[in-house]
Amino acid sequence: MSKIILTGDRPTGKLHVGHYVGSLRRRVELQNSGEFDKIFIMIADAQALTDNADNPEKVRQNIIEVALDYLSVGLDPAKSTLFIQSQIPELTELSFYYMNLVTVSRLQRNPTVKSEIAMRNFETSIPVGFFTYPISQAADITAFKATTVPVGEDQEPMIEQCKEIVRKFNSVYGEALVEPEILLPDNAACLRLPGIDGKAKMSKSLGNCIYLSEEPESIKKKVMSMFTDPNHLRVEDPGQVEGNPVFIYLDAFAKDEHFAEFAPDYANLQEMKDHYKRGGLGDVKVKKFLNNVLQAELEPIRNRRKEFQKDIPYVYEVLRKGSQVAEEVATQTLSDVKNAMRINYFDDKELIAMQSAKYEEKND
Amino acid sequence: MSKIILTGDRPTGKLHVGHYVGSLRRRVELQNSGEFDKIFIMIADAQALTDNADNPEKVRQNIIEVALDYLSVGLDPAKSTLFIQSQIPELTELSFYYMNLVTVSRLQRNPTVKSEIAMRNFETSIPVGFFTYPISQAADITAFKATTVPVGEDQEPMIEQCKEIVRKFNSVYGEALVEPEILLPDNAACLRLPGIDGKAKMSKSLGNCIYLSEEPESIKKKVMSMFTDPNHLRVEDPGQVEGNPVFIYLDAFAKDEHFAEFAPDYANLQEMKDHYKRGGLGDVKVKKFLNNVLQAELEPIRNRRKEFQKDIPYVYEVLRKGSQVAEEVATQTLSDVKNAMRINYFDDKELIAMQSAKYEEKND
Repeated sequence: MSKIILTGDRPTGKLHVGHYVGSLRRRVELQNSGEFDKIFIMIADAQALTDNADNPEKVRQNIIEVALDYLSVGLDPAKSTLFIQSQIPELTELSFYYMNLVTVSRLQRNPTVKSEIAMRNFETSIPVGFFTYPISQAADITAFKATTVPVGEDQEPMIEQCKEIVRKFNSVYGEALVEPEILLPDNAACLRLPGIDGKAKMSKSLGNCIYLSEEPESIKKKVMSMFTDPNHLRVEDPGQVEGNPVFIYLDAFAKDEHFAEFAPDYANLQEMKDHYKRGGLGDVKVKKFLNNVLQAELEPIRNRRKEFQKDIPYVYEVLRKGSQVAEEVATQTLSDVKNAMRINYFDDKELIAMQSAKYEEKND
Repeated sequence: MSKIILTGDRPTGKLHVGHYVGSLRRRVELQNSGEFDKIFIMIADAQALTDNADNPEKVRQNIIEVALDYLSVGLDPAKSTLFIQSQIPELTELSFYYMNLVTVSRLQRNPTVKSEIAMRNFETSIPVGFFTYPISQAADITAFKATTVPVGEDQEPMIEQCKEIVRKFNSVYGEALVEPEILLPDNAACLRLPGIDGKAKMSKSLGNCIYLSEEPESIKKKVMSMFTDPNHLRVEDPGQVEGNPVFIYLDAFAKDEHFAEFAPDYANLQEMKDHYKRGGLGDVKVKKFLNNVLQAELEPIRNRRKEFQKDIPYVYEVLRKGSQVAEEVATQTLSDVKNAMRINYFDDKELIAMQSAKYEEKND
């Protein structure tokens, strides 16, 4: 069986280093590993509209930002199909039929939906589209017959919901859908980065993100203002590295060669951490090192972005072509689904013949 | 503005005299009145699947039955567009976006949904598709820019929900949708017929329906077994006509000319009712009269049905052509909707130009 990836992002803002560490960097590795037959990467504008219905302009404007970020980190249209969710209407049709296979109480029990609802302070005013998005996500995954969905642990209930829909569909209507597997991050550094203020989540509204497209001076300013160990008051004090955003960022980004170049006193991150823990290493020094590391990592991404920014019509053309390819695949799956459900009536010669025969007998 | 009707039925069985009196008879009158520019009549298979997901064959087999019933009562493909809901995928796309404009708690408060849920003993295992069907119905109505929806009073909350969606959509995204008006039945006889057993609802599973395609002997047998006034034990006893199914059916079907032909002792129904109320008129006599009336009313319908039954492929062809016409209209509405939402990105030259300009400035 083919190995197929489906993944994507909601276009509600530019992507930041949290996205990079949490998914993008690995996505590029998977793309270049040669292990997958097809890779579909979706800009989930329709999903973003489920909780931004009254601000469609935000979603509309950010599609290009996400696409630029994709191309600049190294997602390659020759290897991965980059597309826009709303341009594949077949997804809404699949969602519509899957909705009959899931109960309201099952959705209410979904832990991811529960926490997302709490995070948005929706309480009783949850939009139906947002409440049902696990079903729409199952449509996205199954439309491309994805075998592999690389997401974080927090998304596990979503993949479970998708598997349930696949099993239910295949048992009621006959085998048409492929059950996906979750592909969890393989190392701790691939988890969520905190904001530069130490808050668990990076968010545009909190202003605590470093964007992939951030300019050098701005990166430096943000790094130098980062939250560290609040008890590490004097250089000689012992410091804590666990939960310290600066060291979490270093865990995610610092390679041994960075030490050779920017901090030759240390062979690797462990030696720097040890010094910080026993005291005598100041936050400013560590931050300067992190700044150098981030500058080195982000510079080629930013430079590639600037090249792509010069030709916005090309980026839309990439998305248009990708959406065409994606739609062809989704159309085939939808046809399989409708054949399994036997709702392709006008092409169903057997149905018409059988019903004609039934009435011929009666008319005799 | 054009006057446009949208209405339809769920294909879960043959249609019966309750459907005829409740909607079909009037639908034919509206069709022939010349007052409407377009009439769309939908066989709602996709909606039927929302609570018959595990019995798709029932829905599949009954599409032709409903279509045959439509044609035999006088719905005319030259005047009305007869189509199958699932063949218009644009409806699912509209539903998908409307779902963002309605909250979960708003759906939970819908009285029609509440009572339908109770009727089906769904309680906590309500399929999501069923729970959200008021939204899907709003998609059906608005897709055809319907101005007029002829339904019973029990459906008023559904039309209210549709109007809310239209207002919300037009205020958030700009005027694209038409607000429909409910067209309530104009006389009491156009309301719900009870089952022949006196139960409020006719249902296939209760075996208390008289079908439009019922054979003469079977009609007679059913009429003669009808529930009447349980206190009307002897012919000479005074009888009650209110709530008496036989008289409710006569209210719906008996015309003065039927008396001249089948019960010349009475000039009209009022005289027969008066006799029954004062005593001296037996149930058997009334039932025989009702049988004659129903036979006279149903014979031409049954005969026309037999003609159409001889050419099932023709009936499918009517539905196929109707679905084509319906899809053209729905496609236009969907395009209006997407233009209003501004999610036709690839055709949006202004968007691409604006974003190009934004980055040109930055690159300078």
